[in-house]
Amino acid sequence: MINKIVVSDRRFPLSKGAGSDAIHRDPVYSYAVTELTDNKGNTGTGFAFTLGEGNDLVCKAAQFYAATLQGRDIEEIMGDFGNIFRQLSNEQQFRWLGPHKGVVHLGLAAVTNACFDLWAKKRGVPLWKLLTSLPAATIVNTLDLSYLEDELTREEALQLLESNRSSMAEREGIIHSGYPGYDTSVGWFNYSDEEVRANCRKAVQNGFTAMKLKVGAADAERDIRRAHIVREVAGDDVKIMLDANQQWTLPQAMKICKVLQSMNPYWIEEPTHPDDVLAHKVLADHIAPTKLALGEHVPNRIIFKNYLQTGSAGFIQVDAVRVGGVSEFITVSLLCRKFGIPVVPHVGDMGQLHQHLVLFNHIAMGHEALFLEHIPHLQQHFIHPVHIRDGRYITPMEPGSSCDLKK
Amino acid sequence: MINKIVVSDRRFPLSKGAGSDAIHRDPVYSYAVTELTDNKGNTGTGFAFTLGEGNDLVCKAAQFYAATLQGRDIEEIMGDFGNIFRQLSNEQQFRWLGPHKGVVHLGLAAVTNACFDLWAKKRGVPLWKLLTSLPAATIVNTLDLSYLEDELTREEALQLLESNRSSMAEREGIIHSGYPGYDTSVGWFNYSDEEVRANCRKAVQNGFTAMKLKVGAADAERDIRRAHIVREVAGDDVKIMLDANQQWTLPQAMKICKVLQSMNPYWIEEPTHPDDVLAHKVLADHIAPTKLALGEHVPNRIIFKNYLQTGSAGFIQVDAVRVGGVSEFITVSLLCRKFGIPVVPHVGDMGQLHQHLVLFNHIAMGHEALFLEHIPHLQQHFIHPVHIRDGRYITPMEPGSSCDLKK
Repeated sequence: MINKIVVSDRRFPLSKGAGSDAIHRDPVYSYAVTELTDNKGNTGTGFAFTLGEGNDLVCKAAQFYAATLQGRDIEEIMGDFGNIFRQLSNEQQFRWLGPHKGVVHLGLAAVTNACFDLWAKKRGVPLWKLLTSLPAATIVNTLDLSYLEDELTREEALQLLESNRSSMAEREGIIHSGYPGYDTSVGWFNYSDEEVRANCRKAVQNGFTAMKLKVGAADAERDIRRAHIVREVAGDDVKIMLDANQQWTLPQAMKICKVLQSMNPYWIEEPTHPDDVLAHKVLADHIAPTKLALGEHVPNRIIFKNYLQTGSAGFIQVDAVRVGGVSEFITVSLLCRKFGIPVVPHVGDMGQLHQHLVLFNHIAMGHEALFLEHIPHLQQHFIHPVHIRDGRYITPMEPGSSCDLKK
Repeated sequence: MINKIVVSDRRFPLSKGAGSDAIHRDPVYSYAVTELTDNKGNTGTGFAFTLGEGNDLVCKAAQFYAATLQGRDIEEIMGDFGNIFRQLSNEQQFRWLGPHKGVVHLGLAAVTNACFDLWAKKRGVPLWKLLTSLPAATIVNTLDLSYLEDELTREEALQLLESNRSSMAEREGIIHSGYPGYDTSVGWFNYSDEEVRANCRKAVQNGFTAMKLKVGAADAERDIRRAHIVREVAGDDVKIMLDANQQWTLPQAMKICKVLQSMNPYWIEEPTHPDDVLAHKVLADHIAPTKLALGEHVPNRIIFKNYLQTGSAGFIQVDAVRVGGVSEFITVSLLCRKFGIPVVPHVGDMGQLHQHLVLFNHIAMGHEALFLEHIPHLQQHFIHPVHIRDGRYITPMEPGSSCDLKK
């Protein structure tokens, strides 16, 4: 029974230049942390990610949702979590503030993630282990599939999970080999060309075969020069992703993406505004076969559905600390599986939670084990920080979702 | 010079059943009110609308934006408001909480509206008068057109306003005749059939030629029965709108909208989730020539652009206390004008502010003067409440935007 609820506003300033992109020049990585403690002493920890300012607003929203769980048993909650999620996300007054987006949805993410963490801890297993061992119906009972009826019914969701069950054993080898990572920190926006060059060399030495550069400068020449530096240092066999963080207008993106194709990017990420589904479709058609990646700022399953329906996204970067937590992450992953699009999460959680979720996506859902973003910042603040060896995430074995923070 | 900033959380419980719809059963109409006072003693009042819970979060966001205006002159602010809006809405840490949606964008709306109110008060004229008398370039300087480059450039915006200038005099008659209203309160969701019947009769007696019924019941028979009651009482010449408040899934909407066509609705409003642009397109094609109305929950110009691009909306219900205030309302109205779609605002402000904005849309932009929603609640709380006579809004003549609330 949950008898203690604590929500904390945790902020972690970064070292100079780290985390910077074309839009966010001086972020303070922050978490709205929800802790749910039961009468056995288990504490479930979940959070949403922000860039500092306003993290307190997300905490207040999380507090509002968490209060509804006081006195309830986690097994009973999780057995009906899909309905609980639907009720909370549609709470009739609070709903106006979204619906299903912005501060309130981030608050719901923090609470949802704490529930999944508590569930796994109570059962004494890592979250990936819990999720991969549950029957399909139990997984689907944790999901809110409302407003997806035209693309993903409950029956289709069950069938997607069940049809991949017999081949699960073939994919479990990844638990031992580790899930591949990619280095997202070689080219933050504010880093100098020299820093980018040095970071690329280090990433290759550390075994990474994929890495990302921030683009979206007012001066397009800077983007092009730096993209070619990364290609030159990393070589032709490394996958290089370019991330514009929404900086371009559609006409700008149409032009510069064509030029950037000269260094053979593996994807171009967040080229323009995350609400502009149709602009992404126009751009995707214009630059094919180069693919777009997006999802870091997409707040819910419904907008992801629209992106998938237009066929504009080559990669979906749903983030469980941006959408309504693990539950909606799984829903979006099922949608992606149906549409045949890989899920490559953005990791506002620094990969702590997502290392569990991509294992589940791969083993239980049959998603390709492409690679998971790796951001080295904040590791010192986690009790069980991610471990990377030879560019791969070492599978976490502690109970829960690896989201506990040091006090 | 703005030297005093006050943000207040004002909540107004309603009488039983009032304001209820298929999703919101017990709303508390609330305003996050921003007051900007200058050293001449003028106070600009602006607000965003919520349904109660979480109104305090919007107040905190408004406070954050308002603080940036301390010590600045309102004329200087408004001369460059488009850029100021762009900067505020993209403040690099706070932006993460949206971007351009949810709590933060509602907070920005409150501040934006206070700026426009102060501007009109300082000039001693009603807001409609100020806006209709400004040069096109001055209006466009208050707008942030970013991410609309594919549909509405600055040049196109200027041209839209300038091309309607010579015919303005023909449309100014409406100042004296009053802008038509429609009665949105005949059929709140929780009202009994008898109340709906009585309210319809009263609305017709009061001169309204258009009115709205809330639908979206779990029991479709209830919707159909009540819709026919309204048609029967109001007669065939009255326009009757049906509002589902997002309650239906797409498959449900496909079915019930077809049945509801039997009572000849003028529009069907918010049939399903407000983020689902493509579902609205499928539905609009399915039920043509019956038209959809939407926008009450659409947070920004970019999503409105997508709706317009798909041609799924027959009426756009942008609300200046939901999007980023008067500025973004005008931007969306320009987009609608370009696409030939009428603007029929949702009035979270109870029509106080929108009575000014629809006059501007009609006189300066050439939008059809269709009708403006009328909600009778909260009138006792405004210093200058709207006046309705024979179903028409009497043009407000007090300086500002009529948004001052009694203490």
